Amino acid sequence: MAISFTVTNKLKNGRARLGLLHTPHGTVETPVFMPVGTQATVKTMTPEEVWNVGGRLILSNTYHLYLRPGQELVRESGGLHRFMNWSGPILTDSGGFQVFSLGPLRKVSEEGVTFRSHIDGSEHFFSPEKAMEIQMALGSDIAMAFDECAPYPCSYEYALEALDRTSRWAERCLAVHRLEEQGVFGIVQGGVFPDLRKKSASEIVSLNFSGYAIGGLSVGEPKELMYEMLDYTVPFLPEEKPRYLMGVGSPDCLVEGVLRGIDMFDCVLPTRLARNGTVFTRRGKLVVRNAGNARDLTPLDPECSCYVCRNYSRAYVRHLIKAGEVLGIRLTTIHNLYFILGLMKELREAVREGKIVEYRDKFMEKYHSG
Amino acid sequence: MAISFTVTNKLKNGRARLGLLHTPHGTVETPVFMPVGTQATVKTMTPEEVWNVGGRLILSNTYHLYLRPGQELVRESGGLHRFMNWSGPILTDSGGFQVFSLGPLRKVSEEGVTFRSHIDGSEHFFSPEKAMEIQMALGSDIAMAFDECAPYPCSYEYALEALDRTSRWAERCLAVHRLEEQGVFGIVQGGVFPDLRKKSASEIVSLNFSGYAIGGLSVGEPKELMYEMLDYTVPFLPEEKPRYLMGVGSPDCLVEGVLRGIDMFDCVLPTRLARNGTVFTRRGKLVVRNAGNARDLTPLDPECSCYVCRNYSRAYVRHLIKAGEVLGIRLTTIHNLYFILGLMKELREAVREGKIVEYRDKFMEKYHSG
Repeated sequence: MAISFTVTNKLKNGRARLGLLHTPHGTVETPVFMPVGTQATVKTMTPEEVWNVGGRLILSNTYHLYLRPGQELVRESGGLHRFMNWSGPILTDSGGFQVFSLGPLRKVSEEGVTFRSHIDGSEHFFSPEKAMEIQMALGSDIAMAFDECAPYPCSYEYALEALDRTSRWAERCLAVHRLEEQGVFGIVQGGVFPDLRKKSASEIVSLNFSGYAIGGLSVGEPKELMYEMLDYTVPFLPEEKPRYLMGVGSPDCLVEGVLRGIDMFDCVLPTRLARNGTVFTRRGKLVVRNAGNARDLTPLDPECSCYVCRNYSRAYVRHLIKAGEVLGIRLTTIHNLYFILGLMKELREAVREGKIVEYRDKFMEKYHSG
Repeated sequence: MAISFTVTNKLKNGRARLGLLHTPHGTVETPVFMPVGTQATVKTMTPEEVWNVGGRLILSNTYHLYLRPGQELVRESGGLHRFMNWSGPILTDSGGFQVFSLGPLRKVSEEGVTFRSHIDGSEHFFSPEKAMEIQMALGSDIAMAFDECAPYPCSYEYALEALDRTSRWAERCLAVHRLEEQGVFGIVQGGVFPDLRKKSASEIVSLNFSGYAIGGLSVGEPKELMYEMLDYTVPFLPEEKPRYLMGVGSPDCLVEGVLRGIDMFDCVLPTRLARNGTVFTRRGKLVVRNAGNARDLTPLDPECSCYVCRNYSRAYVRHLIKAGEVLGIRLTTIHNLYFILGLMKELREAVREGKIVEYRDKFMEKYHSG
C-alpha cells in the first residue's frame, strides 16, 4: 500500500497519540495540520515558504482543479506536485464538500451530483468514479472518497440518507481506484446523531481504506457538540489507521482534537483570517487592521519567533493592509501558518511527554486571556 | 558628504561609464536600476526577495508615505529602512511628480502646490521645504529636490516657467536640508526644448547637489525624442556626479540610457507589467495570461535562470493569474525584476569590456524578434 501509518506513542489515559504517516513523497509526523492549497497554491505563498513555516503535507482541491485549470493539464505537467512545485505529500479532497455546498445549484441522484460551476455557471457531473478519476489524474498521495457532507442543522432522516449514500459511494470509489502509489481515505458521516456516527463508522471501516476521515463536523455546530461527536466516533475507528478531522483549524479545536485522538486536520481558517487582516497570538486573535495598531511598533505576537515577528511591526503590517499591498496579507499568512504549525509541534511534544491535558489547560487559559 | 560617487570606468568613445555610488547603507555599482517601493514595499515582494533578484538600491515615495502611514510614524519606527526592513540604500522622490500629476486637483503658486489626496480628497500643501522635511523624517539615503515636471506635450512658455520655478525651488530645498547622512539630488527640467535643457542644467548644476537627475522625460514623448534630449543634456552634467534618468525602465530605454552616460534609473514598469500578467523575455514581452499559454509547459523565458523559470511553467503561472491567485503576480514580478536587474548587470559588463554598442545591437535585434 502506498500509504502506511505507524503509531509511535499512545497515551495510557486518553486517546491522544503520535504517529508517522508514510507517503510516496515522504514521511510526516502526526498529529499534523495541512495548509490548504485550494487552487494548486497555498494562497499568497511559495512552496518553499510553506515548508519554511513548517508545512509538510498540504491539501488541494479536486472541485477547483477540475474546473480550472483542468486535471488533464495537471497530468500533462507531471502531476500536481510538479505542476505547483511542491515536493512533499499532497492530499486531495474529493470535491464532495464543494458540490454539496453549492446548494440550489445542484441535483443529487444515486449516480452522483449534477452541479453548476461557481465560475461560469456551466453544468457538470461528479460521481464517485469521476472524483477518483480526477484525483488519479492529479496524482495526489492521498485521495478522499466522494461523500455527501450533510449540513448543520439537518434532520435525522436526511443525515441517514446522506450517510447511506456515502457508504455506497465509498464502495464505488474503491472499486474504480487503481493508482497504486495513491492512498484512499474513507469518510465517516452521520451528522450530530451518535447512532448514525456509529453506523457510518462501522460501514466505512469495513472497507479497506488507508485512513479514515470524520466529515460533517465543523459545519456550524457548537464546538462542544463537535467534541462530543469526536468522543463518540473515534472509538469506532481502527487504532492502526490515521484519523483525519476535516475542516478544523482553529487553535482551540486543534488542541481538543489532538486530545481526542485525531491525527490529521485541514482548514482554510489560518490563511483566510490572514487575508482579512486578523492574526493568531498566544493571547487570542488580533485584528491587525484595527486603528489601535496604527502606531504599535511591537511585533504581531511578542512571543512569536516567525519571520514576520522578527522583522516587522504591527504598524507596518497594518499600513500594508490598509494600503492594499500584497505583502501585508503575505506577512499575516506566514505568521498564521507558523503559529498553527508551531502549535501542532508543541502538541506533539506534549503528547510525547504525556502532558497533553496540562498543555491544553495552560494553552486555553492564555489564549482566552487576550 | 553622505553620498559620494566614483567613476571607475569611462569609455573612450561614447559616454557610457561604470561607477560606485557610496551611501550610508552601502555601495552600489552603477549603472543601476532601482525597483520602486511606492508605499514602503516593492509591490508583492519581501525585501529579501528584492535583494535576491539583484536589487541593491530602491526608490520609495514621499507623496504616498506622507499620506499613508505619515512620515512621523516612519520616523518613530526608526526611519524607512527599519520600518520596511530594507537594509540597503533608499532614494525617495520628492512628491513633485505625484502632486503635479493630480491635474485639476492641484493649485500651483510660487510658495508650493496645494493638492487633494487621491485617497480621501483631503487638501494638502507641499512646498520645497515640506518635501525636504518629509524626506528627512523618512531618513532615505538620497532625497530628491522638489521640482515641477512639465507634461508632454507642453508649450515652450510653460516649460520655461516650470524650469525656472524648479531652479528657485532647488535653492530652497538645499537651504533647509540639514540631515548630514542624506544626499540630495537636483532635477533638470526643460521639456523637449534643447535650449531650456541647457538653461536648466546650468542652473541646477551650479548648486551643490550630490547628484543630478533628468526629469520630465519618459512622460509620453517618442523614445527617439527622449534619446535626443539625453544626447543634448548629459554633456551639461558634471562627470564626477551620478546622473539619474527618472521614470525609465523598459529594456530598450535602459540600454540606450546606459549608452548615453546615465548611471541610475527607476520605473514601475517591470512590477506593473507583472501585475497585469505580462513578462519580459529575451525575445520581447510575453502576455502570460493569453490563452495561447494555457498548455505551455515551458518556462516564462527559456533563457532565464530566475527562481520562477527554474521551477514553474507558463501554464502554471497563467493558471494562477486567471484564478486570481496572489502567487501568480508574485512570480511574474520576481521574473521581471530579475530580468531587468540581470540586464543591468550585463550592461555593466558590456561597458567594462568596451562593447556597449555591440551589446545594444545584439540585444535589440533579439528583443524585437519575438
